[in-house]
Formats: sequence, structure tokens, C-alpha cells
Amino acid sequence: MMKRRIALISTGGTIEKTYDELSGVLSSHVSVLDVMIHSLELRGLDIQRVALMNKDSLEMTPEDHTLIAETATRMARQHAGVVVVHGTDRLAASGERVVELGGVPASPIVFTGAMRPYELRSTDALQNLTEALLAVQLLTPGVYVAMHNQVLQFPGVVKDRERGTFVKP
Amino acid sequence: MMKRRIALISTGGTIEKTYDELSGVLSSHVSVLDVMIHSLELRGLDIQRVALMNKDSLEMTPEDHTLIAETATRMARQHAGVVVVHGTDRLAASGERVVELGGVPASPIVFTGAMRPYELRSTDALQNLTEALLAVQLLTPGVYVAMHNQVLQFPGVVKDRERGTFVKP
Amino acid sequence: MMKRRIALISTGGTIEKTYDELSGVLSSHVSVLDVMIHSLELRGLDIQRVALMNKDSLEMTPEDHTLIAETATRMARQHAGVVVVHGTDRLAASGERVVELGGVPASPIVFTGAMRPYELRSTDALQNLTEALLAVQLLTPGVYVAMHNQVLQFPGVVKDRERGTFVKP
Amino acid sequence: MMKRRIALISTGGTIEKTYDELSGVLSSHVSVLDVMIHSLELRGLDIQRVALMNKDSLEMTPEDHTLIAETATRMARQHAGVVVVHGTDRLAASGERVVELGGVPASPIVFTGAMRPYELRSTDALQNLTEALLAVQLLTPGVYVAMHNQVLQFPGVVKDRERGTFVKP
Repeated sequence: MMKRRIALISTGGTIEKTYDELSGVLSSHVSVLDVMIHSLELRGLDIQRVALMNKDSLEMTPEDHTLIAETATRMARQHAGVVVVHGTDRLAASGERVVELGGVPASPIVFTGAMRPYELRSTDALQNLTEALLAVQLLTPGVYVAMHNQVLQFPGVVKDRERGTFVKP
Repeated sequence: MMKRRIALISTGGTIEKTYDELSGVLSSHVSVLDVMIHSLELRGLDIQRVALMNKDSLEMTPEDHTLIAETATRMARQHAGVVVVHGTDRLAASGERVVELGGVPASPIVFTGAMRPYELRSTDALQNLTEALLAVQLLTPGVYVAMHNQVLQFPGVVKDRERGTFVKP
Repeated sequence: MMKRRIALISTGGTIEKTYDELSGVLSSHVSVLDVMIHSLELRGLDIQRVALMNKDSLEMTPEDHTLIAETATRMARQHAGVVVVHGTDRLAASGERVVELGGVPASPIVFTGAMRPYELRSTDALQNLTEALLAVQLLTPGVYVAMHNQVLQFPGVVKDRERGTFVKP
Repeated sequence: MMKRRIALISTGGTIEKTYDELSGVLSSHVSVLDVMIHSLELRGLDIQRVALMNKDSLEMTPEDHTLIAETATRMARQHAGVVVVHGTDRLAASGERVVELGGVPASPIVFTGAMRPYELRSTDALQNLTEALLAVQLLTPGVYVAMHNQVLQFPGVVKDRERGTFVKP
């Protein structure tokens, strides 16, 4: 069984907030994203971690969105797929930027994030990461968001703040 | 946004072992599968629960496999997809039976299960259910198993007991 | 084995913040305190729940502290002990008020609370409740706070905001 | 605030079964007991860990019980208290042995254990360890078991297999 090689680009946001509890146990600091990846059984993928930035997405500049879009597009040429972990508030801006810059990428680019951090018992972070890591294997080349049991394709995806999820009106 | 209507057929196995802790809190008994479904944010699907049987798959008879296969095939005609929760030891037998009986079903039929029950902190049940509930939306009609971050298509899928997962040699 | 009959007075605070996740599963709303009590094995105690108020302790008035102190003192005469769940910011004010009003109560009165709510994986709520429910069985009549693996006796207990715990300087 | 210095003697049993999930994340192997200790806020105690043996208590010989009893008695002279983590099936045998050998120890010796391992969501391990680590501060010198919200003093404590706890008939 050959594993697909994908890139996992982290940019910050709720899903990546520091996990203080474990860091006490661990000798070195381990990111929440690494703890989540370790808690999953990932037989289908060989993941290359790319720590691009660590920003609350509300603080992202247009340059940040362009950098994320360019990095994802470039990684899509070198991998079987790309997952981008992103703050949900400005996730759609980065997604649209990929479409503007590059049209259809060489392999699927799947954005994901979380409404409630991993520290909460009721977090959606693990569900969303699980979904993005599966969707990237099944989708055709394109730009998507995978969260809350649905996959939506850019352009035209927006965050529905009231319902706390993404929609394509 | 229209939700896809799918059937979720439960047949028993590790993933469905009773969750005693919660049942103490709850006035009525709630199945583990219901607890798991409630812990996920399911925006993409409208799920119809079908409690077909509750068996350790090692005790399934050929008639059980045929009943599961026939029910899944029939449900696939009436829904946008079918997820079957199944004990992993004989999951492949039911999957193969669907192919034998019906060829390509009217909509995707996705089997899933768990190696470690939900009661364990290290359970794979939530990951696998999450994956099956996403895969059923993205796959073309066919018979599959979704578990451990990979999707494999029947026929030809077998359980690799040593590695504790499914493979397609 | 006779169980000691104690009163558990709830007044609000971090430890009692609503547990939204479970309330989705449960038909009726169940307080976090009830969920915590159910998750413990309580063989030594027969607990009478008294929901006195539900306030962030920063909003408590002098009348609130007096009401809490009077209720705890009265309950101490009718029970083998009293546990008071209280917001930590003004917990010491209620504890001192018991001493001012009543001197030594008829049975031990043990205050407890939490710095991090039950919703967090890293919550201290269960530890502190566990400690208060054991301490109330072992202490002589008096007024105490039990939290973070230590028991301190009033008067003279204060919250150390920097270290996030109680001390007796 | 001076911390009490106690010894925590581990002998094996359900409470100490290896926690595979975390060990994957951690560079070096960390015992479940260490993970539990790290998850608690221990302000009252300075704990010296003594890894005496690692046995299912059903396999303990009379010599093992004597070794545990002698070690606990000796540690009780050098510390403000001793907590012994022990398999529940033969915990009472070790407890009685302390009384036989030494009469009243120099400081409290508190045995504890677990009926359901830490790996289970419904574990009683954290509750019991929390109780033992508080009880050892509040009790007078003697030999005890602290579990399930009750403290019982040796001699005369037995395991009630049906109810899954300790009793003093």
C-alpha cells in the first residue's frame, strides 16, 4: 500500500492554541497540531509538516493571504495534496486568494480550522482535521474547505458567523 | 444548502459497546453510536438510523452477512449514501457480499468500525465514524471501507490482523 | 457501612458553568455539578444537593455572603458535614463570614471551587470536588477550603491570584 | 507554606497499566502514574516516587507483601506520610501485613488502587489517587485504604468483589 505524500501547512488560529496541560508532561514543547496528529491513525498519508506562520487570522494582512496562497499552490505541485490549517475568521480570504492566483491547483488544497479549541472537551478540531486529511485523498484538484462534515469548493465559500460554520450561499 | 440524506446501519461490534458511564447520567439508555453522532457537528448529512442487529461480528452467520448486504443495497437505492457500522473481524465478509449480490450499488456504501472501543481514551471509533460520514459524500457509487485515514474499495479488501487495520494487497 | 449524610451547597462560579456538549445528548438539562458527581464513585457519602444561588462570585453582595454563611452553618447542624461550591474570587469572603457569624460550626464546612472550568481538558474542578468530598469526612468541625491537594482552615485564608490558588500567609 | 514530604510507593496493578497513546507522543516512556500526578495540582505535597515493583497483585507472593509492608513502614519514619499504589485484589493482604509487622506506623500509610484503568474514560484511578494524596495529609498515623470517597482503617478491611470496592464488615 503506497501512502500519499501531502503537505500540512499550519498558519495559526483556534485549532493551534497551545496545549498547556500536556506541555507540562512533555520535555520539549509539542504543538497541539502534533498532539492531534499523533492521536489519529494515519495509514493513508505521509505528512510533511510546514509551519508557515502562527497568527490569529483576524490579524492577517493581504500579504499573509498571498503568502499562504502561493505556498499552498507551490506545495500542491510537489505533493499529492495540501491541507491548510487556518483561523476560521479569514480562512475564506486565503481560499479565494488561491483561486485568484492560480486557478486550479495541481492537486487538491483543503483548508480547515476549528470553532472551539482542542483544550475544550467539546472541540471540533479533531473532527475537522480528520475530515481534511481524508478529503484531500478523495477530491479532484481544486480549492476546498472541509469542516463539520461537509466539503465546500472555492470560490464562493463564506463563514456563517451566526451558525458558526462555512456555507456556500 | 441541501443536506444529503443517508442511512446509518448499525450491526454491532467494538464501536457500539455500551457506554456505562454516561448511561448512569442519562435517564434513558442511549447507544454509544448516538453519543458519538451527538459529539460531531454534522452539517452535510441528514442521517436515518437503522439498528439492524447488534452482534460481535465473529458470531455472524452467512445469513447475517447476506441480510446486511441486502439491507445496505436496498437503502442505497433510497438514499444518497449508506454507512454501515460493523465489527472489524468479519467486516470484509459483509463488504464482499454486497459486491457479490448487487454489483455496483445505486449510491456509495461505506463500511467502518473500530479496533478500540469508544470507552478508551485512545479509541479510533470517532475518527473512523467521522471519516465514513465524510467519505460517503465524496465517493462515487461502490462498496468501500473507510478507517484509519484511508478508503479502500471492495472487492479485495482484507483485515491485516497484525497491523490492526484494513489493507488491499 | 453507614454513609455520612452531607449537604452540597452550590452557589455558582467557574466549577458550575454549563456543559453544553452533554446537554445536547440529555433530554433535560443537567448541571455540570451533577455530571461531576455522577462521574465519581461516592461510597462514603449520602449527598443532599442544595442549589442556593448561581452567581459569579465577583458579583456577590455582602448579603449573598451572609446568606451563604448562614445556610452553611444551619446545614452543618443537620448534617455530618457541608461542602460549599463557590467562585474562587470571593470564596474567602464567604468563608470568613461563617467564622464571624458562627464561630465553630456543628460539623465541618468545606469550601471548594475551580480555576479552570470542567469543559477544559485541563480542568481542576473534578480534583477539587473529589478533595472536598473526602476532606469533609476526615476533618474536625471548623471552616476550611479544600483545593489543589491542600486543606486550609479559616480564618486567614486568601486567594493568591498570581499562583492561582489559596494560601494562608 | 511548607509542603509535606511524602513517599509514593508504586507496586503495580490496574492503576499503573501502560498508557500507550501518550507514550507515542512522548520521547521517553512515562508511567501512567506520572501522567496522573502531572494532571493534578499538588500544592500540599512534595512527593518522592518509589518504584518498588510492578506486579498484578494476584501474582504477589507472601514475600512481596512483606517487602511492601516493610518498605512502607520504613518510609513512614522518614516522611510525613506514605501512599502505596497497589492492585486491589491483594491490597488488603499488604495492608494487614503492615499492621502485623509494625503496629502503628510513624506517619499515615494510605493504600489506594483502581478498579478501571486510566485508559478508560470511566476510570476511577484519578479519583482514588486524588483521595489518597489528600487523606495522607489529614489522617493520624495508622494504616488505611482511600478509594471511592471513603477511608477505611486496617485491620479488618476486605475487598467486596461484587460491589467492586473495599468495605469493613
